[in-house]
Amino acid sequence: MTDASSSRPEARAPRGFADRRARDLMVERGLIARVSEVYERWGFEPLETPAFEYADALGKFLPDADRPNAGVFALQDDDDQWMALRYDHTAPLARFAAESWQTLPKPYRRYAFGPVWRNEKPGPGRFREFMQCDADTVGSDRPESDAEIVAMACEGLTAAGLGEGQAVLRVSDRRLFDGLFDEGGVTDAGQRLTALRAVDKYDRLGWEGVRDLLGAGRLDESGDYTKGAELGAGVIGRIEGFLKAEQAGGWTDRIDRLAAAGGLGAAGQAALESLAKIGAAVKALGAPEGAVTFDPAVVRGLEYYTAAVFEAELLLETTDEKGRPVRFGSIGGGGRYDDLVARFTGERVPATGFSFGVSRLAAALRAAGRAPAEPRGPVVVIVFDDDGMTHGLACAAEIRRAGLAAEVYLGRAGMKTQMKYADRRAAPAAVILGGDEIAQGTATVKDLDAGRVAAAGLADNAAWKAERPGQVTVPRADLVAVLSCIVEEASRKPPTAG
Amino acid sequence: MTDASSSRPEARAPRGFADRRARDLMVERGLIARVSEVYERWGFEPLETPAFEYADALGKFLPDADRPNAGVFALQDDDDQWMALRYDHTAPLARFAAESWQTLPKPYRRYAFGPVWRNEKPGPGRFREFMQCDADTVGSDRPESDAEIVAMACEGLTAAGLGEGQAVLRVSDRRLFDGLFDEGGVTDAGQRLTALRAVDKYDRLGWEGVRDLLGAGRLDESGDYTKGAELGAGVIGRIEGFLKAEQAGGWTDRIDRLAAAGGLGAAGQAALESLAKIGAAVKALGAPEGAVTFDPAVVRGLEYYTAAVFEAELLLETTDEKGRPVRFGSIGGGGRYDDLVARFTGERVPATGFSFGVSRLAAALRAAGRAPAEPRGPVVVIVFDDDGMTHGLACAAEIRRAGLAAEVYLGRAGMKTQMKYADRRAAPAAVILGGDEIAQGTATVKDLDAGRVAAAGLADNAAWKAERPGQVTVPRADLVAVLSCIVEEASRKPPTAG
Repeated sequence: MTDASSSRPEARAPRGFADRRARDLMVERGLIARVSEVYERWGFEPLETPAFEYADALGKFLPDADRPNAGVFALQDDDDQWMALRYDHTAPLARFAAESWQTLPKPYRRYAFGPVWRNEKPGPGRFREFMQCDADTVGSDRPESDAEIVAMACEGLTAAGLGEGQAVLRVSDRRLFDGLFDEGGVTDAGQRLTALRAVDKYDRLGWEGVRDLLGAGRLDESGDYTKGAELGAGVIGRIEGFLKAEQAGGWTDRIDRLAAAGGLGAAGQAALESLAKIGAAVKALGAPEGAVTFDPAVVRGLEYYTAAVFEAELLLETTDEKGRPVRFGSIGGGGRYDDLVARFTGERVPATGFSFGVSRLAAALRAAGRAPAEPRGPVVVIVFDDDGMTHGLACAAEIRRAGLAAEVYLGRAGMKTQMKYADRRAAPAAVILGGDEIAQGTATVKDLDAGRVAAAGLADNAAWKAERPGQVTVPRADLVAVLSCIVEEASRKPPTAG
Repeated sequence: MTDASSSRPEARAPRGFADRRARDLMVERGLIARVSEVYERWGFEPLETPAFEYADALGKFLPDADRPNAGVFALQDDDDQWMALRYDHTAPLARFAAESWQTLPKPYRRYAFGPVWRNEKPGPGRFREFMQCDADTVGSDRPESDAEIVAMACEGLTAAGLGEGQAVLRVSDRRLFDGLFDEGGVTDAGQRLTALRAVDKYDRLGWEGVRDLLGAGRLDESGDYTKGAELGAGVIGRIEGFLKAEQAGGWTDRIDRLAAAGGLGAAGQAALESLAKIGAAVKALGAPEGAVTFDPAVVRGLEYYTAAVFEAELLLETTDEKGRPVRFGSIGGGGRYDDLVARFTGERVPATGFSFGVSRLAAALRAAGRAPAEPRGPVVVIVFDDDGMTHGLACAAEIRRAGLAAEVYLGRAGMKTQMKYADRRAAPAAVILGGDEIAQGTATVKDLDAGRVAAAGLADNAAWKAERPGQVTVPRADLVAVLSCIVEEASRKPPTAG
């Protein structure tokens, strides 16, 4: 350690990484706990795979990872093998399932939450580490396992806090496009993937943008040109039909209309049969009417999906901090990936799953007016000297034994600084143990919400004080009872500081 | 994707990294939840820093990291800056506190849990990724803040499940050694650190091993020679006195004896005054008698501690899987690190904290006979064809609505395989919906615990069946009530499969 300031490291988190404090964490942890409870009730067990996988096991399935190792954080182990941090929970699950297949109950249902890492250019609101939550079933080729994932995802979103009609699970099957490509003579795998990724941008770019990307290419607003899939006009027309498909009627009506239009080949026919079963199973599973819909415009951007695909969408016209309307859009998605385990074993093991970003769902809840109340701080005990400290520590311990959060101010400062500290901590109350209080066996309690309300001019100060005094001196024996009342009252209102 | 088996990646987790399944995760998550609840009640707020820090911000404080970048996983960002995965939660906290100091309530109390990564040689039971849980107070130089950490750690261990007398928090102050070195003329910082790390091995090596490491050096059983601190005989004798200090009497008695022995210089005197205050504060905070003791043998291995040091020890003679006695030893530790924030700012910001490894505490709970009951699986619904599937899905949904975990077997198999699956899932019961049941509006319930008990020969089969039938067919309307009884009964007993 040295005193030379030139050799001091700068205190900053790496680019694209963020510290997260109580306010956000408590919301996200509550959300994860409620969703986990739902997933376990549906028979999904927790699994945690390591942060690292060998790079070859992880594979390259990110939508924008066309360069080798692009998109991931990779390093070489001391035995020269390349390892990379996981970019999602699906690729590690495929590795785990392949490795443990003989010992797993089959089909194997698991859920997982934890950070994933993407080595992308950081930007405002674009992080390189974020929490993702997945649920997957490995080893079932039944459309009912897709339906189960979808219906469970609905229940998870409801448990997280979204109200009826605030979100929808849109479901389709990529084989509709497989059939459409087959019939239209589009055989090149790269061309097909480029086309699917163009379709996946429909929400953001609208039909004109997608049409350009399906054709020769698209010049965006910044002047960048993206090469297109170079499909023929006939195939592009069919895709336009999918994207603009009539939304009227129920699940079965939509399938019937697509089937009647024809031209989807054997793959498309298989997709329609599978989708019919998914619709029936979602209904049997009791998903609320309208919470799950069939929409042929859903394709998802990841390469590895082979059949059913899902997208969860927030159904709100929300506004940004400047009051401008914002379409919130996708809050999660997934699908069936029947080839991912076969990468390792050579044997096809069907699998399906759904994932969402935890921060994004928390943001969706805020946008939907469903954010939970902010957490309250502890009761702050204030003392003024070393003798008072011992009383203060014992007093805080007594308050905690009653189940309330409490702490003693442990800096070295007078009344004003300590009260300011209590305010910063969003404390519902401060307990003052001065020399008089200690000598007389009392404690002075400041109801900080009462104080805050008065300070904010939200109530007539005198009237408020008459009814609910901001400060009261009570016998020590009554302290916990008085604090319990204040904390209970405070928990009904949001804090005004923090 | 290709079919050539030679190009298939091998399905294996990287060396030193492990997959963790339901059984371990549920124990560890319960433990974290209970400890977090305690820490929040003491006024500590959650904080999550990123997995990565810039390498210069992280510093090099690992006991065995004498080579540059040794011990950490590091990589270069695309702007050429070196980043490394955190190896603990303390170094990132120091960076965060330095970066955010102006905006934090001071003193700042926070707790954190999450994985840390150590790039060490993996071995049996030695992982390169593990979960650590920390609590720290930044910005208080008061011994009472050390006492608070210690008393809270005790309450955390109790909440995690350790019984009275099963663990002890041993407390000392490194300045006792500073004073001893000052008085003994040991001025070289490297020599002092080597000596402290030798003392930290007292538990494992005993006095003879430590004595060799304090002197010329030590030849271990494998034939490796470790160079010693080369202290003089006088200083080594004083250290022997510390390590073998009389354990009789209370906190104050022990301090008085050390003070009376003298020779600890100004630093040692300051340490004794601070320890006296810690003792009084721990008592005021209501820590159970005997749960916290002063023991001058405690030093801890990390370089950055400057004063108080803590070590949590499991007080059990436990046995390994072969029934041999094992001393479990340390399950956590911490101390005061007043210089860590100053690395960034040049200004001293006092800080103190405690951390434990979550898996290690879970292992300690098992060793102490305090492991929680293993989680039970869901009710498994068994059907035999596509028509049955729709009934099965609706039936599982109905069971879940009653708050019980339930799932439909979603593979394609007959009765025997499905029953085996239910057993593997540690299901308390299986519900069979065959053609007859569906036609008659009934369901057949198999009480799998009854079946397991009978199969294990733990009860007289006929008598058991008479009293509590392993299988019963009930009207669908009664199904949930019957299952609730079985699940409630099952939750009182450990499962015999899984």
